[in-house]
Amino acid sequence: MPYTPPLRDFAFILDHVAGFDQVRNSDLFGDATPDTVQAILSEGGRLCAEVIAPLRRPGDTNPARLDNGAVVSPPGYAEGFRALAEGGWIGISADPEHGGMGMPQTVSTAFYEMMSSACLSLQMNPLLTQGQIEALEHHASDKIKALYLPKLISGEWSGTMNLTEPQAGTDLAALRSKAEPQEDGTYSVSGQKIYISWGDCDFTQNVCHLVLARLPDAPAGSKGISLFLVPKIIPNADGSLGQPNALRVVSLEHKLGIHGSPTCVMEYDGATGWLVGAPHKGLAAMFTMMNNARVGVGVQGIGVAEGAYQHALAYAMDRKQGPTPKGATAIIDHPDIRRQLAIMRAEIFAARAIAMANCVAIDMATATGSADWAARAGWLTPITKTYGTETGITVSDMGIQIHGGMGFIEETGAAQFLRDVRVTAIYEGTNAIQALDLVGRKLGDGGAAAFALLDEVAETAAASDMGAPVSDAAQALRSATDWMLGQGMAERAAAATAYLRAFARVLGADMHLRAAQSGEAARVSLARVYIDHLLPECAAHLTAMRADPASYMALSAEDLGA
Amino acid sequence: MPYTPPLRDFAFILDHVAGFDQVRNSDLFGDATPDTVQAILSEGGRLCAEVIAPLRRPGDTNPARLDNGAVVSPPGYAEGFRALAEGGWIGISADPEHGGMGMPQTVSTAFYEMMSSACLSLQMNPLLTQGQIEALEHHASDKIKALYLPKLISGEWSGTMNLTEPQAGTDLAALRSKAEPQEDGTYSVSGQKIYISWGDCDFTQNVCHLVLARLPDAPAGSKGISLFLVPKIIPNADGSLGQPNALRVVSLEHKLGIHGSPTCVMEYDGATGWLVGAPHKGLAAMFTMMNNARVGVGVQGIGVAEGAYQHALAYAMDRKQGPTPKGATAIIDHPDIRRQLAIMRAEIFAARAIAMANCVAIDMATATGSADWAARAGWLTPITKTYGTETGITVSDMGIQIHGGMGFIEETGAAQFLRDVRVTAIYEGTNAIQALDLVGRKLGDGGAAAFALLDEVAETAAASDMGAPVSDAAQALRSATDWMLGQGMAERAAAATAYLRAFARVLGADMHLRAAQSGEAARVSLARVYIDHLLPECAAHLTAMRADPASYMALSAEDLGA
Repeated sequence: MPYTPPLRDFAFILDHVAGFDQVRNSDLFGDATPDTVQAILSEGGRLCAEVIAPLRRPGDTNPARLDNGAVVSPPGYAEGFRALAEGGWIGISADPEHGGMGMPQTVSTAFYEMMSSACLSLQMNPLLTQGQIEALEHHASDKIKALYLPKLISGEWSGTMNLTEPQAGTDLAALRSKAEPQEDGTYSVSGQKIYISWGDCDFTQNVCHLVLARLPDAPAGSKGISLFLVPKIIPNADGSLGQPNALRVVSLEHKLGIHGSPTCVMEYDGATGWLVGAPHKGLAAMFTMMNNARVGVGVQGIGVAEGAYQHALAYAMDRKQGPTPKGATAIIDHPDIRRQLAIMRAEIFAARAIAMANCVAIDMATATGSADWAARAGWLTPITKTYGTETGITVSDMGIQIHGGMGFIEETGAAQFLRDVRVTAIYEGTNAIQALDLVGRKLGDGGAAAFALLDEVAETAAASDMGAPVSDAAQALRSATDWMLGQGMAERAAAATAYLRAFARVLGADMHLRAAQSGEAARVSLARVYIDHLLPECAAHLTAMRADPASYMALSAEDLGA
Repeated sequence: MPYTPPLRDFAFILDHVAGFDQVRNSDLFGDATPDTVQAILSEGGRLCAEVIAPLRRPGDTNPARLDNGAVVSPPGYAEGFRALAEGGWIGISADPEHGGMGMPQTVSTAFYEMMSSACLSLQMNPLLTQGQIEALEHHASDKIKALYLPKLISGEWSGTMNLTEPQAGTDLAALRSKAEPQEDGTYSVSGQKIYISWGDCDFTQNVCHLVLARLPDAPAGSKGISLFLVPKIIPNADGSLGQPNALRVVSLEHKLGIHGSPTCVMEYDGATGWLVGAPHKGLAAMFTMMNNARVGVGVQGIGVAEGAYQHALAYAMDRKQGPTPKGATAIIDHPDIRRQLAIMRAEIFAARAIAMANCVAIDMATATGSADWAARAGWLTPITKTYGTETGITVSDMGIQIHGGMGFIEETGAAQFLRDVRVTAIYEGTNAIQALDLVGRKLGDGGAAAFALLDEVAETAAASDMGAPVSDAAQALRSATDWMLGQGMAERAAAATAYLRAFARVLGADMHLRAAQSGEAARVSLARVYIDHLLPECAAHLTAMRADPASYMALSAEDLGA
């Protein structure tokens, strides 16, 4: 099934919905002219369609495996990665000083969405490397930057993130891995880490691990965690490779999806590491990177949704079955099928526009240092992550259903989208954690970021002849935000998911109204679909949000049992 | 993970919610005394927990395979099936004249739900056999009945349904398989059939196929289809096995789930068959059976939901992570996790109670011949199928999420529930087809069955101090039903799914209100959870239902493309 890059949607969203002109008018990102961005996305899209998308199925049927302690990647991945590296795609947003393109994150994110549609398992490798590049740019010493960044940006080396331990998943405060300072200024890192994507790689010369561990004098809990760079092979000062480090892949996980991506259990046994950032400040350093990684994961969901949608659309246009109101023709002419396809498209558009608006806020915060832009980026991040990944799951699931019996047959490829995307709602902080972040830390500004967004929604809705339900929903959400601000943390925790989903629905409708302002008939129709079929869920979420949690907190384990 | 049969729920639903006393007070089902039913379900539950549930994982990791044209089933399935057969479980509802127990369908359905929780792949075999028994009881000649029914009921032989062909999925009118009459009164059946579950079996001595095909003089379309019984091995008149028939398994499908169940492509090449029912009336004969099979599939969804729920509950009670409002304890004490578990439990209870009420209506129609009971059974059937299977998918998906990263690892077993249950929304008529059946054929009574149910809902709600939102929703649904009756078929088709889902929500709330009337604190709390968190979706569905389909029908293929 060929993949068609959604270039028309990207261009439209950048120009008409997400306010990208502000980014390109900034001093920092003046190079991101319309022509340059269009050329980058068009060339990147071609690469994803022609080189990366053909790797999606083979990686599923020939999973990454462990041979004598080394990962063997699926057939074709090495060539695919080389094409990405040679095109400079790994460092689109990296600092030009070390070989990056210096493009805004909005642009790199659009490219990473296309890569996710094409082959999520392979995309994870450069995505994690990009995250590591960003972490080192912000927190590493100049010496480490000079040694590692050019190799990571060029794709000669790849990067991983090592957070989770068996007893410490969501709760990183429970981490036990240790780092002992050595005479030479390095650290001896020991411990076991799990869920390490691309913990080994056979198409890069070195694998650089960012590892969270505790120094001997570390305070307990989350304030005693430091960040270390621990390479698979210890590089010499000139960047050439020296001795192997004391670390190994213990095993690979057998997973529901992303079979092409090796998920490693890693063992560090006195491995040599270098401190990144200040002692005991590792979690903060990891979180600067995690916030953008969360946007990246949301966009993985959107990318897979786009792939699943295109797959289902092609099937619906091809498959003949049964008399339709127009006569015997393809199943796309059955109203129920067309409704589902339109809903899938409307969901993807809304999630994509929110993600792009999120990236614009990130880029504007970078370009201007504005706290308001940073607050907006922070507010939108858990929404992009949750709404993007839930869109990935919902749309992939609908894609299976549109295929009928064929959807359950693996060769069709529809089921792989659901299997692959399912993890995105879990990793990089489960979606429940995103909701807690939204109503906890992010609402710590007294709702300023939320209310600023709702003001804009109200303005767009007031200017639209189909804006009434959006105005009403925005008003209800404003009142829900006030309600939330009046609650303690336990109450907020109970109501968090419903609140986040309601907020996503209102923002999604807002994005569609902005698109409809173009007057293009198809954009107006799609906005109508969103307002009619998806926005009504907002009210249901807000009713659930205000419900007394006593109903379920009162249920004992015995009550819940069979 | 041990499976605990939900005997407490079954007993409660039969006694307090679904009105089973009417069935046991009927002349036909007088044997179904409380003690007998309790003994049957308790013994059946024990068998499912001890013998069948241990087969769930091995069947997933050792899929059924084809060896030299014969199906090889997963390890342990033969022994599991033998235990079912020896206990008389295949013929719980079959006529005692041929060796059945003669129990109401309500009882057999409860047992089949437990078998679905334990091992869906194996359950499909007796479920299909049970369907064949029912079809033969209603439509076969006395000679065929006498020859086949004792063998099917005893589990010596098994049964399949052969409907689908590559060009004829949902649209059976497009079937091409042929049957030529022979001099001896048999028929020569030829054609290819796909998606044939258990099309071959290595633990029964014979496999009996019910095959839809066309006679030479058949009119075109759905009115020219006849039903044939085509055994793998042609039995002699005394029931001993004779010559192999001219049919074979061409290949097995590689599927998302139910790996233990072989899904066969079957080839009939002049195979000897016997006509079942009247010529050209095969579809009608198949549909008597399909209606009950649809209830059976809905209950498969509920059974898998129960399995996934128990699995997630056990994990949530065991897994320690992070500070909860009560201190560092198991994740079940996090409000978001407990909310999800309560919602899962509330969904399962509602779906199970609706399915049981559906079965009571089927049994009462059988026992009394009442057209009202038959209409109620007909109305509830597409709702049981769709709501049951969507509950299976939703609850299994939530079960994965509760497991966090472990949910994505296959060894955990959480993902298998989702992979297995996904097909239930597709087979036996996709859920969209169920919705079309509801607003088409079933609404052909002018809404009588719907309004009768809504009257009862209104009455229950009026008597409950938490009934107000249920009253409102029932009133809105009544008005939606009136609206639907005023629409043409094209408009109904567009609005069908939203209408069905709204109806399911109102019935689900009604079942919970009936349960809450018991005054048991846990039942009241669970009803509250349903009304607070799930019933509000009803209004969203009804808004979507009334939306003008012009919004999406106006989108061209180009508009929908990238």
